[in-house]
Amino acid sequence: MLELRLVQGSLLKKVLEAIKELVNDANFDCSATGFSLQAMDSSHVALVALLLRSEGFEHYRCDRNISMGMNLNNVSKMLKCAGNDDIITLKADDGSDTVTFMFESPTQDKIADFEMKLMDIDSEHLGIPEAEYHAIVRMPSAEFARICKDLASIGDTVVISVTKEGVKFSTRGDIGTANIVLRQNTTVDKPEEATIIEMHEPVSLTFALRYMNSFTRATPLSNTVTISLSSELPVVVEYKIAEMGYIRFYLAPKIEEDEDETKPQV
Amino acid sequence: MLELRLVQGSLLKKVLEAIKELVNDANFDCSATGFSLQAMDSSHVALVALLLRSEGFEHYRCDRNISMGMNLNNVSKMLKCAGNDDIITLKADDGSDTVTFMFESPTQDKIADFEMKLMDIDSEHLGIPEAEYHAIVRMPSAEFARICKDLASIGDTVVISVTKEGVKFSTRGDIGTANIVLRQNTTVDKPEEATIIEMHEPVSLTFALRYMNSFTRATPLSNTVTISLSSELPVVVEYKIAEMGYIRFYLAPKIEEDEDETKPQV
Amino acid sequence: MLELRLVQGSLLKKVLEAIKELVNDANFDCSATGFSLQAMDSSHVALVALLLRSEGFEHYRCDRNISMGMNLNNVSKMLKCAGNDDIITLKADDGSDTVTFMFESPTQDKIADFEMKLMDIDSEHLGIPEAEYHAIVRMPSAEFARICKDLASIGDTVVISVTKEGVKFSTRGDIGTANIVLRQNTTVDKPEEATIIEMHEPVSLTFALRYMNSFTRATPLSNTVTISLSSELPVVVEYKIAEMGYIRFYLAPKIEEDEDETKPQV
Repeated sequence: MLELRLVQGSLLKKVLEAIKELVNDANFDCSATGFSLQAMDSSHVALVALLLRSEGFEHYRCDRNISMGMNLNNVSKMLKCAGNDDIITLKADDGSDTVTFMFESPTQDKIADFEMKLMDIDSEHLGIPEAEYHAIVRMPSAEFARICKDLASIGDTVVISVTKEGVKFSTRGDIGTANIVLRQNTTVDKPEEATIIEMHEPVSLTFALRYMNSFTRATPLSNTVTISLSSELPVVVEYKIAEMGYIRFYLAPKIEEDEDETKPQV
Repeated sequence: MLELRLVQGSLLKKVLEAIKELVNDANFDCSATGFSLQAMDSSHVALVALLLRSEGFEHYRCDRNISMGMNLNNVSKMLKCAGNDDIITLKADDGSDTVTFMFESPTQDKIADFEMKLMDIDSEHLGIPEAEYHAIVRMPSAEFARICKDLASIGDTVVISVTKEGVKFSTRGDIGTANIVLRQNTTVDKPEEATIIEMHEPVSLTFALRYMNSFTRATPLSNTVTISLSSELPVVVEYKIAEMGYIRFYLAPKIEEDEDETKPQV
Repeated sequence: MLELRLVQGSLLKKVLEAIKELVNDANFDCSATGFSLQAMDSSHVALVALLLRSEGFEHYRCDRNISMGMNLNNVSKMLKCAGNDDIITLKADDGSDTVTFMFESPTQDKIADFEMKLMDIDSEHLGIPEAEYHAIVRMPSAEFARICKDLASIGDTVVISVTKEGVKFSTRGDIGTANIVLRQNTTVDKPEEATIIEMHEPVSLTFALRYMNSFTRATPLSNTVTISLSSELPVVVEYKIAEMGYIRFYLAPKIEEDEDETKPQV
C-alpha cells in the first residue's frame, strides 16, 4: 500500500514540467525515505535525478519499496487537471498495475481522481558518487535561464568559464559571438539574488545549449540554481526543492575537438 | 426600419464568440419582443438558442418582424473592431439587403460603421417545449469550463451523473480514467460560487466533450451555468445574460451502446 | 573609433522591432550629429528613415563618418539579449569589419558583449526635401494601430480622408465596407490623447494596409503619431523618439485606378 499526500500539489506539477521534455518514460521509486526518480534522457546524453523526501509530505505511507513505471507526458496531462492550490494524493495498492492521483480543492468541494496504468520500464540505477568539483556557482535561477535562452539564439554550445572574479558564458554562431560575464556578488538585499562562486581551480567547459535549456524548465521550482563544474566530471545543475529535496541534471562536457570549433575567439 | 442600440456593446461581442465556433451561417430574428437566433451546428447535432429581450436595449425599434441571414464569422470580424466600451447600434432599412453595425466610443470621438450584405438562409424554427427535467445543476461557469477542458485531455465523452450529494463528471481514454465530483454547496460567500443541485431522480448521461467544450465559449457571458438533465431529452446548458435573456445549448445524450464503451469502470 | 552609450537601452530594442519587419539589411550611418538609417523595404515600396541625435546619448564619440551594414534580423536577435533596463554601448574600431554591442545591467553585475560581422550593402541615400502637406493629423499612436489592424480584417487598402471636422479611414472587402471617423479633439485631459488636425486643403488618399500595419510596429516608441498627407507626395507616418529624434515611414499613395476599386460606396 502506497499513499503519499502532498499539500503543495503545485510542486508536483512543476516537477513534471521540469522533466517531461527530457524524459519520456521513467520509473518513480518509492521507499521509506522518499519518492525519487533517476532517468536518462531519450538520447542517453543527460541524466536527471529527483528526490522528494518523505518528511516533506503531509502523509507518507510506503509499506514496501516499489518502482512505478509511467509515461511522463500522460502524468503531466493528468496533473494539469489539478488546480494550483489542490492537495494531491498519490495512491497504489500492493500488486496493482495502476496508480491513482487524487486532487482535492482547498475547500473540499471538488474531488477528482485520475487512474493510470503503470508500465514496465527497464532501467538500471546508476550510483552517483559524491565528488569534489573544481568550481561551484550559485546564482539566481531566472538569470541562468535567461542566459541559456539568449545564447541559444546565437550558437549551439556554451563555454562556461569560472575564475575568482566571476563566471563567463560564451558562444559563437553564424551571426557572431557572445560573452556574458556575471561577477561574484554576495552583498545583495535578497540572498536569492546573490551570485556566489566557490572555486578551487579555474575551469572552462563546453556544453550543448539544447540540454542546458531543457534543464532550465525546472526554474519555477527554485529561486536559485547551483552549477558544479569539474573538468573530469559531468556538470551538475541542481535546483533545490524547499524542505523536500532536489532535482539534479547531469551532462557531460563536449570534448576538446568540439570545443575548439565552438570556442569564441578571444 | 430596424434600429437596436445596445450600450453594453461588449455583450454582443461575447455572444458572437460564444456561437461562431458552432454555427457558420444563421438567421437573426427581430420582433417587437426581442432579438433572437436559433440554429443547428454545422453537423446537425447541437442546437443553440439566443434571446436578447427588447427591454435590455437602450433603444429598440423593430417596425415589423425581420429575419436577417448572416455569416457569423464575418459578423465576428466586424464586432472585433468595436472597443469593449463602445455602444453598438444595429440598423437595417426595410427591404434592404444589408445590415449596418455602428460603434460609438464612450467619448463620441470615434464613430465606426460597418456594412455587411445579408444572406438567404433556409432554416426551420423548432418549437422547444418547456419540459420537466430529472435534475438541474447550477454551478460556476468557469468551473464547468475547466472540467470540460480537463476531461477532454483524457477522453472524448463525459458521463454526467447526478445524485443528491453532488454531480460527477467522468471520462476514460487510452491513458486512464478520470472522475471529478462536485459536492452540493450552497453556503458560499458569493452566490455565484454555489453549486446547487435540484434533483427529482438520479440521472447518468453521456455526452460528446467536443460539443460541451464548444458550449463553454459562452463562459464570459455569465458567472454561472445551469445544466438541465433528463434521460429522455437533450441536455440544456444555459448561460443567462444579465437583464436581457439567455443563450442555451441543446445536445442529445449518446445512446446506451456508446455509453457502455465510454463509461468509466466504477 | 566609434563609441555610443545609450542609457535607455530598451529604446534601441524598440527601434529594431519597429523596422526589422520592413527592412532586411541596412546601413547605419554615424556622424558627429547622430546615428541614422535610411532604407527602402525589400519590395522597394516604402522608405524608413531613423534619426537618433548625438545629444541623446550619454556618451557619443564618432571620429569620422562611418556606414555600418547590418542584417537587422541578426541585430534584433542580439538586442533581445539585452535586459530592458540595460545600458547599451555600440563600439567599432576604425577599419574593423565588426561591431560590438555591450549590455550592462543597472547593478553592473552582468556585462554582455555581442560581436557581429558587418556587411557591404549598396545603398543610395535619398535626399528628402522638406515639403508642404495638405493636411497633418496628430493622433494617439495606439488608436492608429488599432484602426489599421481592424480595417485589415475587412480589406486590403485604406482610404484616409481629412476634412476640418475629422479624419476618416475607410476600406471595403468581400464581407462588406467599413468607415471609421475620428473627430478633431483637443480638449482631452492628457495631451497625448488629443486628435489634432491641421488642414490647408481636404485630401483623400489610398494606401496599402499591409504597409500601414508594418509602420505601426513603431507604436511602443511614442504615444502619438503624426500623419502628413498631400496628394502629390508620399504620406509620412512619423513617431517621435523623446529627446533623441524620430522614425519616419514614407509610402506612396495608390493611383486613381486602384482607388476606384477600393473606395467604399458612400
